[in-house]
Amino acid sequence: MIAIRFSLFYEHQLPRPWEDGQELKLYQDALDQVEIADRVGFDYVWEVEHHFLEEYSHSSAPEVFLAAASQRTKRIRLGHGIVQLPPAVNHPARIAERVATLDLVSNGRVDFGTGESSSSAELGGFGVRRADKRAQWQDAIDAITRMFVEEPFAGWNSADITMPPRNVLPKPLQKPHPPLWVACSRRETIQFAARNGIGALSFSFVEPEDAGRWVDDYYRIIASDECVPAGFAVNPNVAVVLPMMLHEDEATAIDRGIDGAHFFAFALAHYYGTTPHDPGRTNVWDEFLRRRESRGFSRQEIIANAESLNVNVGSLRGAVGTPDQVTELIRRYESAGVDQISFVLQAGPNKHEHICESLELFGKSVLPRFTEGRDEREAEKAERLAPAIEAALARREPARKPPPGYRIDEDAEVTRVHRSSRRRPIRVDVRTAARRRCQQGFYKLVHGRSDAQIEKRFGPGAQRVFFAGMARAFDPSASAGFTGELEFRLTRAQGRTVWTLHIGKSRARARSGPARDPALTLTLATADFLRILAGDANPASLLMDGRLELRGDHYLAPRLSEMFGGPSPY
Amino acid sequence: MIAIRFSLFYEHQLPRPWEDGQELKLYQDALDQVEIADRVGFDYVWEVEHHFLEEYSHSSAPEVFLAAASQRTKRIRLGHGIVQLPPAVNHPARIAERVATLDLVSNGRVDFGTGESSSSAELGGFGVRRADKRAQWQDAIDAITRMFVEEPFAGWNSADITMPPRNVLPKPLQKPHPPLWVACSRRETIQFAARNGIGALSFSFVEPEDAGRWVDDYYRIIASDECVPAGFAVNPNVAVVLPMMLHEDEATAIDRGIDGAHFFAFALAHYYGTTPHDPGRTNVWDEFLRRRESRGFSRQEIIANAESLNVNVGSLRGAVGTPDQVTELIRRYESAGVDQISFVLQAGPNKHEHICESLELFGKSVLPRFTEGRDEREAEKAERLAPAIEAALARREPARKPPPGYRIDEDAEVTRVHRSSRRRPIRVDVRTAARRRCQQGFYKLVHGRSDAQIEKRFGPGAQRVFFAGMARAFDPSASAGFTGELEFRLTRAQGRTVWTLHIGKSRARARSGPARDPALTLTLATADFLRILAGDANPASLLMDGRLELRGDHYLAPRLSEMFGGPSPY
Repeated sequence: MIAIRFSLFYEHQLPRPWEDGQELKLYQDALDQVEIADRVGFDYVWEVEHHFLEEYSHSSAPEVFLAAASQRTKRIRLGHGIVQLPPAVNHPARIAERVATLDLVSNGRVDFGTGESSSSAELGGFGVRRADKRAQWQDAIDAITRMFVEEPFAGWNSADITMPPRNVLPKPLQKPHPPLWVACSRRETIQFAARNGIGALSFSFVEPEDAGRWVDDYYRIIASDECVPAGFAVNPNVAVVLPMMLHEDEATAIDRGIDGAHFFAFALAHYYGTTPHDPGRTNVWDEFLRRRESRGFSRQEIIANAESLNVNVGSLRGAVGTPDQVTELIRRYESAGVDQISFVLQAGPNKHEHICESLELFGKSVLPRFTEGRDEREAEKAERLAPAIEAALARREPARKPPPGYRIDEDAEVTRVHRSSRRRPIRVDVRTAARRRCQQGFYKLVHGRSDAQIEKRFGPGAQRVFFAGMARAFDPSASAGFTGELEFRLTRAQGRTVWTLHIGKSRARARSGPARDPALTLTLATADFLRILAGDANPASLLMDGRLELRGDHYLAPRLSEMFGGPSPY
Repeated sequence: MIAIRFSLFYEHQLPRPWEDGQELKLYQDALDQVEIADRVGFDYVWEVEHHFLEEYSHSSAPEVFLAAASQRTKRIRLGHGIVQLPPAVNHPARIAERVATLDLVSNGRVDFGTGESSSSAELGGFGVRRADKRAQWQDAIDAITRMFVEEPFAGWNSADITMPPRNVLPKPLQKPHPPLWVACSRRETIQFAARNGIGALSFSFVEPEDAGRWVDDYYRIIASDECVPAGFAVNPNVAVVLPMMLHEDEATAIDRGIDGAHFFAFALAHYYGTTPHDPGRTNVWDEFLRRRESRGFSRQEIIANAESLNVNVGSLRGAVGTPDQVTELIRRYESAGVDQISFVLQAGPNKHEHICESLELFGKSVLPRFTEGRDEREAEKAERLAPAIEAALARREPARKPPPGYRIDEDAEVTRVHRSSRRRPIRVDVRTAARRRCQQGFYKLVHGRSDAQIEKRFGPGAQRVFFAGMARAFDPSASAGFTGELEFRLTRAQGRTVWTLHIGKSRARARSGPARDPALTLTLATADFLRILAGDANPASLLMDGRLELRGDHYLAPRLSEMFGGPSPY
């Protein structure tokens, strides 16, 4: 059995309508909450870095908020994450400087979370090409961790970062540097975290049992030759993020917390899907009220019944419930080997007083059930992993020394930066662009139409195009080794059509007609199927409404979106 | 009579040798000091943003330090300055976000200081062309202040910044935005501040009487048509920065504070002059010990004699002295119309305990002499300037609305950014580069040589080249309207040569031979003259040593360096 840690997770959400002084209250309340969390025994507070995501996240400068929090707290660790690593958003030296400074003002309490940035609002706002961002993450984390340990940093010369030798100051208090994390949203990125030897912070609202499979994957890779640390230390940890609200009375917990949980997930889908957004004009809260049901966030489905919590079956429930319910849920994650659960309380319209009450109650009634023997179990884990970590670190290129006698030469250095910034050819990923543009157009054609209208517009010929497109978009890294057949039975007013996707090791093929031996059969209306493809309907919600029927291996269903290139927040 | 405010100024200096834990102590001590300053009545704490300036400034993320300070203080304003505005250092949206967030966590206590960045370490490190940085400052401050007030920011498309419409969040608490400042180092930049309607933060260690002329200039321009505000509010203020250490016993004050004051100025000259610097290897503190005398920072010249303080005559003295001496110095700045004095106590090897004692003593014995009636005088000033400010703001372009129905379109936006980043032609300022490269080479040829060696190497032919070069480098904006003749009498072992620079309105000419009617005559050894040009000797120090003799208008002398393109910290 693993030890489990608890954290708070902040997006600084602020649903419209906005009034004067609300952002002030949002920030000041959050500081008060973090103070309570520190006192009652939470281990971490995480704060995201997001830009321009109105209502969903007004947390664009977590370095500032966390620095403020550092002086209001004594023990709690400060999760500076997810810092967006594409250099167009943050120069790598500025990131290293901020993380180190935060480590100094907080007496060594920083955890350094990283991400690639993923919303159109952010990538378009900063001019980051989607096709480049993974490579930029890998490049930047290598440069930044070297800035922490190299004295002086020996310089960098890549497609996206050119910097001459400099001593990047100050250095972090924690040696060699604060623990590293990366944001994950799917099994593939959890594996990616493990290969880089860093903590995985997952935003998938997964059931404990699914998380368990991810954790097994993760620790298998950590212990294998595949792990080549991105930093100069390994941080073997898997954390999952969950909405939370706690009250002794379940109905009260739901009443106080479920709208926040649902808005959190709805707004995430809004910014990371294909929903159109007009800066300064789109009202996400209004959209939520209008469309939460159709998107799978039905409030009525969340019923106080004292049963076990299902995190994400039907409407998203998360950890909204009584201390006993939440304790049982945590036990399941603990058994699955999850190292940390990060709770989102400040979400949507959730009230400050209720958040504070929840934190106090958690500290009194839930937390004490998990602290006994925790340090010992963590020490055992560290001991168990030590040989693997040592071996992994030996695979990493060591810190460098700069060329002897390197002297600052402004003109030569500036010229080098300007030359190299022209090295990457202008290259628009035409296929990705075309696909996204096509999906946006598709959304408009489907949204608000009746089944009959949709069926009429997209006949069998169009369906062939869509299935061929799904086969092309297939991402083998997301199938986790599955091969076999998926059968789609698309019903309509008269009759139905049947399609089969054959999933191979590295590619998928689509054909019309039934499967010979389907691993999973999905039966749904043609119009609903097209709505899912267009991002106008949510499979989970259709399932709950009885509009989608599954037969075969149910566990395959939640993976379909990733397999075929669905949206992801990170 | 004007009201005067007091502030602390932090570079976070850390002279070598470095030991483990020193950066932690540096930051934690500074937080303690700021807490005292807040309690005893200081009005502001300023913290710089500098990168890679080992020993001189380990303050690379002031947004983090000031946010921490915000929770340790109640009243003191947080001077976030100088933020470096070139977009290669800080994306303008990231600046707007950090300033706004700091304003929210501090309950509206931010002052937003800006600068262009100016050291080779920083410009070379981030790849900023010296020739572009002024234009980038002007461009960025316009974009950033619009991000504060436009909802949504309507986008930007300039040579250096391309950004689509986005709602930049959060918004600052202070409306329309925190007061703006710009770092100044010479009369020309003070005038520049006035033309932009923003506070001038001067780093020139000027005597009160010189400051008075600058202040007059500044307020004349603020009240004139020349003032077109860079932001959406005018901040009419002039601040000067001074080293300080206070003790009832003058000798003790000197003993505790003079090395810090001298190291501060020496290291500034090190990074902003042409002294070579090897990252991670150059030991600035050792250089200081070896060369402080020759650079004009002679400790012996600072004598406890209970006389009036001369800030910068001979060795730099600043405000190192007794409460009575410092009070009298402040009175002189106050009479000159200076609005704020910013004291540097954390400098070089100065000790935390002495800094704390000084702050307490200042709060007890100096500050109370300046607070009476201050609010009323400030209100009068505001009233007096109100019509001019209103008129100035009317000259500023108002906030914009974005194109109606603008919708986020990632692919089009990313493509636009990448296209535009190629718009600025590759252009190396060959003349500037050649001049600097030439000066660096020159330094090496002069440094450590005897007079005879230097004279032998640089005969009259070389002198002709140097004077022609000075004439070409002449910057008319720095001459403050002066026209006339400067005569240089260069002595050598046998005989001497005489050169004249004729300063016209827009250009200068050099010729050999005496002037007809010199405004100022400088007599010095040929070798010393060449050492000054090479950055290997300091005119003030030569003057004190009797090696440089001035006849005529002494006030012209300090301006010579600016007139002929000398180094400046901002």
